[in-house]
Amino acid sequence: MANERLAQALLAPRCVALIGASGDPKKNTSRPQRYLRKHGYTGRIVPVNRERNEMFGEKAYPTLLDAPDGIDHALIMVPARFVPDVIEQCAAKKIPLASIYSDGFAESGEAGRQLQQRVLEIARAGGVRLIGPNGMGVINTHLPAAVSINAVLDIERLLRGPVGVISQSGSVMGALLSRGQARGLGFSKLVSVGNECDLSVGEILDMLVDDPDTRTVLLFLETIRQPELLAQAARRAFAAGKPVIVYKLGKSDIARELAASHTGAMTGSDDSANAFFGLHGIIRVETLEAMIELPPLLAGNRPPTGRRIAVLTTTGGGAAMVVDNLGRLGLDIVAPTAGIVERLAAKNIAVKPGTLMDLTMAGTRKEVYSAVLGELLASDHCDAVLAVVGSSSQFHPQHAVEPIVAAVPAPKPLAAFLVPDAAASLDHLRAAGVAAFRTPEACADALRAYFDWRAPPPPPPAADVGAAAALLGNNISPQLDERAACEVFEVLGIARAAAAVIRTPDEPVALGFPVVAKILSPDILHKTEAGGVALNIATPQALQSAAREILARVRAAKPAARIEGVLVQKLERGLAEVILGYKNDPQVGPIVMLGVGGTLAEVYRDFCVRLAPVSFEQAQEMIGAVKGLALIRGYRNLPRGDLDALARAICALSNLARVESRRIAEAEINPLIVKRDGEGVVAVDGLIVTPRD
Amino acid sequence: MANERLAQALLAPRCVALIGASGDPKKNTSRPQRYLRKHGYTGRIVPVNRERNEMFGEKAYPTLLDAPDGIDHALIMVPARFVPDVIEQCAAKKIPLASIYSDGFAESGEAGRQLQQRVLEIARAGGVRLIGPNGMGVINTHLPAAVSINAVLDIERLLRGPVGVISQSGSVMGALLSRGQARGLGFSKLVSVGNECDLSVGEILDMLVDDPDTRTVLLFLETIRQPELLAQAARRAFAAGKPVIVYKLGKSDIARELAASHTGAMTGSDDSANAFFGLHGIIRVETLEAMIELPPLLAGNRPPTGRRIAVLTTTGGGAAMVVDNLGRLGLDIVAPTAGIVERLAAKNIAVKPGTLMDLTMAGTRKEVYSAVLGELLASDHCDAVLAVVGSSSQFHPQHAVEPIVAAVPAPKPLAAFLVPDAAASLDHLRAAGVAAFRTPEACADALRAYFDWRAPPPPPPAADVGAAAALLGNNISPQLDERAACEVFEVLGIARAAAAVIRTPDEPVALGFPVVAKILSPDILHKTEAGGVALNIATPQALQSAAREILARVRAAKPAARIEGVLVQKLERGLAEVILGYKNDPQVGPIVMLGVGGTLAEVYRDFCVRLAPVSFEQAQEMIGAVKGLALIRGYRNLPRGDLDALARAICALSNLARVESRRIAEAEINPLIVKRDGEGVVAVDGLIVTPRD
Repeated sequence: MANERLAQALLAPRCVALIGASGDPKKNTSRPQRYLRKHGYTGRIVPVNRERNEMFGEKAYPTLLDAPDGIDHALIMVPARFVPDVIEQCAAKKIPLASIYSDGFAESGEAGRQLQQRVLEIARAGGVRLIGPNGMGVINTHLPAAVSINAVLDIERLLRGPVGVISQSGSVMGALLSRGQARGLGFSKLVSVGNECDLSVGEILDMLVDDPDTRTVLLFLETIRQPELLAQAARRAFAAGKPVIVYKLGKSDIARELAASHTGAMTGSDDSANAFFGLHGIIRVETLEAMIELPPLLAGNRPPTGRRIAVLTTTGGGAAMVVDNLGRLGLDIVAPTAGIVERLAAKNIAVKPGTLMDLTMAGTRKEVYSAVLGELLASDHCDAVLAVVGSSSQFHPQHAVEPIVAAVPAPKPLAAFLVPDAAASLDHLRAAGVAAFRTPEACADALRAYFDWRAPPPPPPAADVGAAAALLGNNISPQLDERAACEVFEVLGIARAAAAVIRTPDEPVALGFPVVAKILSPDILHKTEAGGVALNIATPQALQSAAREILARVRAAKPAARIEGVLVQKLERGLAEVILGYKNDPQVGPIVMLGVGGTLAEVYRDFCVRLAPVSFEQAQEMIGAVKGLALIRGYRNLPRGDLDALARAICALSNLARVESRRIAEAEINPLIVKRDGEGVVAVDGLIVTPRD
Repeated sequence: MANERLAQALLAPRCVALIGASGDPKKNTSRPQRYLRKHGYTGRIVPVNRERNEMFGEKAYPTLLDAPDGIDHALIMVPARFVPDVIEQCAAKKIPLASIYSDGFAESGEAGRQLQQRVLEIARAGGVRLIGPNGMGVINTHLPAAVSINAVLDIERLLRGPVGVISQSGSVMGALLSRGQARGLGFSKLVSVGNECDLSVGEILDMLVDDPDTRTVLLFLETIRQPELLAQAARRAFAAGKPVIVYKLGKSDIARELAASHTGAMTGSDDSANAFFGLHGIIRVETLEAMIELPPLLAGNRPPTGRRIAVLTTTGGGAAMVVDNLGRLGLDIVAPTAGIVERLAAKNIAVKPGTLMDLTMAGTRKEVYSAVLGELLASDHCDAVLAVVGSSSQFHPQHAVEPIVAAVPAPKPLAAFLVPDAAASLDHLRAAGVAAFRTPEACADALRAYFDWRAPPPPPPAADVGAAAALLGNNISPQLDERAACEVFEVLGIARAAAAVIRTPDEPVALGFPVVAKILSPDILHKTEAGGVALNIATPQALQSAAREILARVRAAKPAARIEGVLVQKLERGLAEVILGYKNDPQVGPIVMLGVGGTLAEVYRDFCVRLAPVSFEQAQEMIGAVKGLALIRGYRNLPRGDLDALARAICALSNLARVESRRIAEAEINPLIVKRDGEGVVAVDGLIVTPRD
């Protein structure tokens, strides 16, 4: 299998060439050779340097063409402009993989982007796969093989362990290694992917799924490239029981701007990225330390069925710091059951009433803590257990955490938080495979991340979009107006308000009153601002004058606009107005978006995004996730909206993602009116943007 | 001065009595004696124990009455039921201060609350001041005197330093000491206040303001007791240039519930607590580590004037982790000015264009990093500087952070974040007094906390509330109905809609139409639900029938209600409806609240709280802080509301706090209609709840 050969070259190279290596130990480019040997690489190293024929005891070659055959992995450190030639040489030498450390490519502007494209074309033509450019190399702690310029390799020794890392930032790859090892976390493979011009995170993750030394994978992302490959690999990882944890930048506008300039990548919205991770079973953390602390919590566990956490502690105030954060993140802290309290009482352990099991000083007795922890782990009233330990963890580390270390494993996560500075206790717990947390914030974040984890659902059932595709095929305009767009929505299954088009103000309409009148023009995007809308028209006479005024106002405001007439639409009323949107996100592809209509909701940025197409169940989840829709979900005494019809409309719009004949950049129904339960939804305005490209 | 004597007894006791001390080293109650000597206390220790006349080499006494005179501080560890007697003995022995470690008081229920009250009365009568009950004691590292049972005192030695701690949780006091010392942070005084039945956080803070060894104070709070004392002390601390940093539980409902059960305290809303901290210059952090890491950032600095941070880094990805959080918290990351870029270019330092100053590998050269950092600190284009250091901080700690340590101090904060695990670098920075952060989250939280810091404003100018007080004095109802409440609001300065009361449906009204009709009854709180409201009535005839129907419906729905008539009100329209509320918060006292009206805004919980009364400027800030009011602050093309009139109305309602003759529990104007700029605001409905107590 071609992929096996590639994985071997990437993760377990037998021979590594270092192109542009320096013999001057002060130069960064001298590091890889030093690091390889320092960390015990036993394969062959081939330094390539025009000016030396020996470097640090290894024979050096003036060019790659002069080097011996059998090279698995070429690490390229020459200036960007020389890289195309070196890749040609890699092809000539049948080297399956080159990783390019050099920068000055897509991350540096248009000229760099073109150079990167040329390098990629040469590599493709020559059968060479690429990591980078602007990548920091690859580390395998097990082989070992540390093919990297990253200064973290000055570390004394590499700790082997079950955690793989794939990072778009070379320095953060180093930071994870450094911070992880400091906490006793060992790694299997670490890959810095740089600009991902060829091999991207997804394809490398796929290799780690097949890597027996890797049980969990950490991703550090600034953007998402090749989302299909990442999605497939993440789903394979989930099926294989290997959790994938991601820390992704881009929660703020400034970070998205930086990512664009730092990596040369297009960035989409953070909500789209979240939807992508959620759909494919990737667990997102918000704190850096949670990345390092979460893996043991997941080991052997599957996504939860509830959101209930039981907490035991020897210190009320210490535990409350975690619990306060958990509460804010929407998790349920559950009190012990009457049965638990009784069974403990039978063992002479009195439990104070309350949600937290605050054992106070008594809890520092091992048998008390053990008994309570055992009851919680064995009980099905909670989906996870948090064990908090106070000052004893600082001065009696072995003794204080012994009940936690000795606890009988249960099919639910166990997290430990130590209130004081208690490095030795943290180490004991880590060594025993218990997830141990240093800060209340990372502890809460990790538990929240676990509770948000879901198994990737199967793709939604097939749907026929032939009629919509045909309508879209017949319309050559880059933007479909209200009427044309609503026709597409209608054939997708979304009812639209009854309407007629009149060419002159006195043309009669066969609609019940009241009605609404709107200008119909392919050249007018903002109808209201052009004076092109009249609402709540009660009679045919009023319609005549309204239409006359609309035409007069629009002709005055937009003399050049082509006017197709006036759209007269039955006035629709309902319980709520929602916005239903569809978009091709630059990072993750088609998404569907649901939000509450109106300017006030716009100010609150209250909407839910999912990857399109969605299933009916996913659409229902979206409705549940929009805060403002509480008003039609049965809030106080307010009537319930037709949520099933709304969910069907979400699915229908999301099916635009299935139209293959024409690329749809954006579509929007605004507003979609939601009526009372049983009365449906109706589209009142909308548009579709579908540039010919 | 009486207070000096107390401060000396609390912080620098010359003789300490330990009542209920054990001679068995396995018992917790043996600890204080051991800890006192272990940490170098040179004063006299008086153990009191019925069964021994010698303990650990000190003479012991059967009762406190048998002990010698001159005791400054009695630490009481006997079971709760014996505490009253011991306090009487303290009084007899003229001991100025007793701290009660014993639990079983207010935190344990009603019986405990009564016992606590009794203890307090005995102490007051006898001139003894109290710490606790349920407190963990007092530590002075400078004297030294560690009068505490807290196991953190098993620590090898106490590090002296400028940071004081006052904690409502004894174990968290220990955790702060433990975590702080592990990071090289030394403390001056630490006080665990327990239930605060007498001496509360405020009074102790006041002593620390006068303590020359204390430069910064950390507060760990579960609730706020005696807010006036805390406010005064915090303002004195601000004036003295001693920053007060608080970590307060209670962000979630569950934490507020826990605080109530754990400390026996009433808890108010977290927004009220925030308003309190903000008003009195107390800096609130959200992360535990920020407590320990923030003090050096504040040292010598005053509240900022802008929100601009300049960032320099040797690693783009590492810095972006902090920057992403900063962006999300609403801070501005600013690019270097053209002048800075030019001056650096003159030194042969090329700066890549962009917001972050990413120096990459070049930045690991000391002279480059120093030059850039110097420019940023000297420039007024930013209000703080964040210096990020990559892998070099791990292996070359001295070298990597040298430019930061050597930077010329500037009148703005400098924060350092180290991307890898770099304990030695953190230590170097700490030793040099630089604020150094271990996690991106705590770093961002600390900077955000600094940027939210404001000087405590003077109290708002006086206002005459005589007319309102008179109206309130004349009305004996515990709840003022719409009409009576709006009369009070009117004399406070808030216009109300023109209105008249009719007793019978055919009574004429001298109002312009359209009008609104509402039932007027002291017994009907929810007028709409009782069928007591009719909107948008266009003519006198329509009013007659509407009034008739209202009366019929209300009599059917609420046969027992006293009906005073029908309130007919001119229909008012404006740009927005807001809710303006006033409340006596159980933690912090009178507050005023501004929110957007309507159920949708209610779902988003979008409101702003400030302590009442407020100044005009504070009212303006409140308007700026309510997200949904963007719609009347000049959003897109929407007209601007009369924000000055709204601010005046906020001040007016907040003046209810000045009414001394009658306690007002709650008042609300809902809605207050905001008209176009220049057209004012008008109250359309409201109520005042003012129980006779």
